[in-house]
Amino acid sequence: MQLNEPDQRIVQYIEAGRDRFIADLKEWLAIPSVSGDPAYATEVRRSAGWLTEYLRGQGFPTVEIWDTPGLPAVYAEWPAADPSAPAVLVYGHHDVQPVEPLDEWDTAPFEPVEDGDRLIGRGASDDKGQVLFHTLGIRAALAASGAGAPPVTVKLLVEGEEESGSVHFADLLRDRRDRLRCDAVVISDTTMWAADVPSMCTGMRGLTEAEVTLRGPSSDLHSGSFGGAVPNPLHAMAALMAALHDADGRVTLPGFYDDVVPLTDEERALFAKLPFDEDEWLRTAGGSRAAYGEKGHTTLERVWARPTAEINGMWGGHTGPGGKTIVPREAHAKISFRLVAGQEPAKVQQAFRDWVAANTPHGVEAEVHIPGGGVRPCFSPIDSPAVKAARRAMERAFGREVLFTREGGSGPEADLADVLDAPLIFVAVGLDDDRIHAPNEKVEIPLLLKGAEAAAYLWEELATALR
Amino acid sequence: MQLNEPDQRIVQYIEAGRDRFIADLKEWLAIPSVSGDPAYATEVRRSAGWLTEYLRGQGFPTVEIWDTPGLPAVYAEWPAADPSAPAVLVYGHHDVQPVEPLDEWDTAPFEPVEDGDRLIGRGASDDKGQVLFHTLGIRAALAASGAGAPPVTVKLLVEGEEESGSVHFADLLRDRRDRLRCDAVVISDTTMWAADVPSMCTGMRGLTEAEVTLRGPSSDLHSGSFGGAVPNPLHAMAALMAALHDADGRVTLPGFYDDVVPLTDEERALFAKLPFDEDEWLRTAGGSRAAYGEKGHTTLERVWARPTAEINGMWGGHTGPGGKTIVPREAHAKISFRLVAGQEPAKVQQAFRDWVAANTPHGVEAEVHIPGGGVRPCFSPIDSPAVKAARRAMERAFGREVLFTREGGSGPEADLADVLDAPLIFVAVGLDDDRIHAPNEKVEIPLLLKGAEAAAYLWEELATALR
Repeated sequence: MQLNEPDQRIVQYIEAGRDRFIADLKEWLAIPSVSGDPAYATEVRRSAGWLTEYLRGQGFPTVEIWDTPGLPAVYAEWPAADPSAPAVLVYGHHDVQPVEPLDEWDTAPFEPVEDGDRLIGRGASDDKGQVLFHTLGIRAALAASGAGAPPVTVKLLVEGEEESGSVHFADLLRDRRDRLRCDAVVISDTTMWAADVPSMCTGMRGLTEAEVTLRGPSSDLHSGSFGGAVPNPLHAMAALMAALHDADGRVTLPGFYDDVVPLTDEERALFAKLPFDEDEWLRTAGGSRAAYGEKGHTTLERVWARPTAEINGMWGGHTGPGGKTIVPREAHAKISFRLVAGQEPAKVQQAFRDWVAANTPHGVEAEVHIPGGGVRPCFSPIDSPAVKAARRAMERAFGREVLFTREGGSGPEADLADVLDAPLIFVAVGLDDDRIHAPNEKVEIPLLLKGAEAAAYLWEELATALR
Repeated sequence: MQLNEPDQRIVQYIEAGRDRFIADLKEWLAIPSVSGDPAYATEVRRSAGWLTEYLRGQGFPTVEIWDTPGLPAVYAEWPAADPSAPAVLVYGHHDVQPVEPLDEWDTAPFEPVEDGDRLIGRGASDDKGQVLFHTLGIRAALAASGAGAPPVTVKLLVEGEEESGSVHFADLLRDRRDRLRCDAVVISDTTMWAADVPSMCTGMRGLTEAEVTLRGPSSDLHSGSFGGAVPNPLHAMAALMAALHDADGRVTLPGFYDDVVPLTDEERALFAKLPFDEDEWLRTAGGSRAAYGEKGHTTLERVWARPTAEINGMWGGHTGPGGKTIVPREAHAKISFRLVAGQEPAKVQQAFRDWVAANTPHGVEAEVHIPGGGVRPCFSPIDSPAVKAARRAMERAFGREVLFTREGGSGPEADLADVLDAPLIFVAVGLDDDRIHAPNEKVEIPLLLKGAEAAAYLWEELATALR
């Protein structure tokens, strides 16, 4: 592996700018932009206003507040000097999680403090710190090159509702699709494997959900009088749900795996390089007693790169205290499918409908309800030009090999990939132990500065790669 | 088939006593002895008092009120002249079901009225009418024979809590076991197949219940992060419950059928003689769309004489509106087993515990809770002396072949058979369309009188058979 030497001009620029950068970030973190609580709507707007002023001050020629029926996003643009240069959109968000339980914080969540290398406060890692390192990065790159504009057109979209479900985000993307047109999307809202194991995410699983209702008699029956002689919808449901997987843990829907893009040998080898402690992972998995899943795949492959069918809820009959000897009239189950590269939610939905119809026993009536179109998986192959370019930038900043991860679920990223039809690149420096969404959220300041450095290298790399 | 001619003295005695008998019954029916509603406790006591006076008037030498921590039973005894004669206990109950919804009654529930051959009012069939025909029967028999005492010692136990679960009945039986000692128990609290198809029940299924909890992670997990890589307790529950039956609808617990007393060819042939309309039966089964059950058995065999495993309730994970993409921490199921002749609840309970332990997948923790000892099945073979004697009495009264049924569930009858260790004989003349437990309960007066006639023949038959 051949790594490029760091650009000392960039390193020094970032070092020199560190204190000012942290001071600015602290000012922003002090604004309690909790999007999930309507009482803080004004603060979310104030956060958008702060960011607008800040980005103007950093030199972005275009900065706008984009209103939604909910809370505002901030959009900024710094065009490349060459109008034919590629465009890259950076995605992040300026709203934060609620801070409850307050008494578990060691410091006030909206009075950020430095503790050695750490900056503590709500939003430090998720996601204000990771949005802001891009400004330091782009200014370092411009200072080092002496140019007046970046080598790609940099667009910045900073959402205000990510922590409350991004409910208006897809519409915003569709409405502004022309302004947002780009050749790649850089996501800076995730984590690396570890401080000493830099990594990039290359895919997120999609999702489609379904609810099945099985109906038998029109009312609950006395099991003394009728038990053993009429179909019991709970038996039918148990049999149906048990048949959803085979003995190897594979989903049995016909055609379910047909379109799956398999992991390459290289990606599997790079996953295997990640220092993964399965016992420790099981502890984070609610103390699960054993790993379990599709045969022939490791735990990381299962959660990142393999599709699943999961029963999220199941119910029917008597569920209260004591006994009630009935044949129940109905049984219900909620199922969700995680989808991976190549799979289409609509196709899986149809396969599930067909499968339920084919596997419902005589005498039981089945109804399948599918809420919405689902979320498509997103995926950027590790050998794609954009991912390779970003990896070079990250490796140059961190001075070591950058490995790959994926994410098991997805949020607004899927909308970005879908609506803008551009590959996603994940350049992020959060850590799993940053306690995002929890008391005492922090970020590692040295990693934020590495993020700025990677961002500084990124535009030149992408300018070449995407041309 | 050779039937004995009716005894004209008995027939005439009953005919002559009809009006007085119906008038007395109406007086009793006017007492609203609803045991399920504490507001009516005084009325249940009044009902016991009425019956006490009545039985004394009918000539029973011993009549007592037996108090319980709840509502009182009435006990009466008429000893045979010969102290070595067999003893027979007659069981019935003097409490009644609530009458709601009141506006669906065509007449006031506690103002009994005659409508042609029908007597309408709460308790007419269930069970005051069927208790009272025994007094007319015994007096007819004594009048015909000219004897001062019946040929067997007749004991009468009329419970006051049957409609509210017989909660103190088993204790009462145990406490009074010596007084209640008998060679057979006559149950007069059930139905015949039809007015023109007289029948006797010969068995009731027993019952044992269990609740299974399967535990996975210590809290619900995000299915994006963990789905497909840890065991899901709902999957394990579906697989466990699906494995409870094989493809032939047989219960898979090892040894489950080992002790089952199979139906004899004669009993199956007699069941098959019952005019059974399966489509009509399915309508009563809540409009179930198909019959289903253990292969090789008819519907009546399945509900009366074959053991079952029924899931009464199952739940876990997200059961509210909308989706929640989790791997749930727990799954629960409530299961009940109907047991038939030969099966012991304790043995089935142990088999179930062992089976759950053996079939719970690695990584999931199982807990089985079994509430109480269960209910043993009861069964009197159709060729047993007591059943044959009662059948002769019924056939003599009805003038036609008496067929056999069984009951799919059981109530206090199981306690009677268990505590008193005596065979049960079912002599009852209710009909399935008597609307017991429903508005407009009625009884067919001609059938009550046939019941009295059968009861009149019964004591002589049993005196011979049980000696």
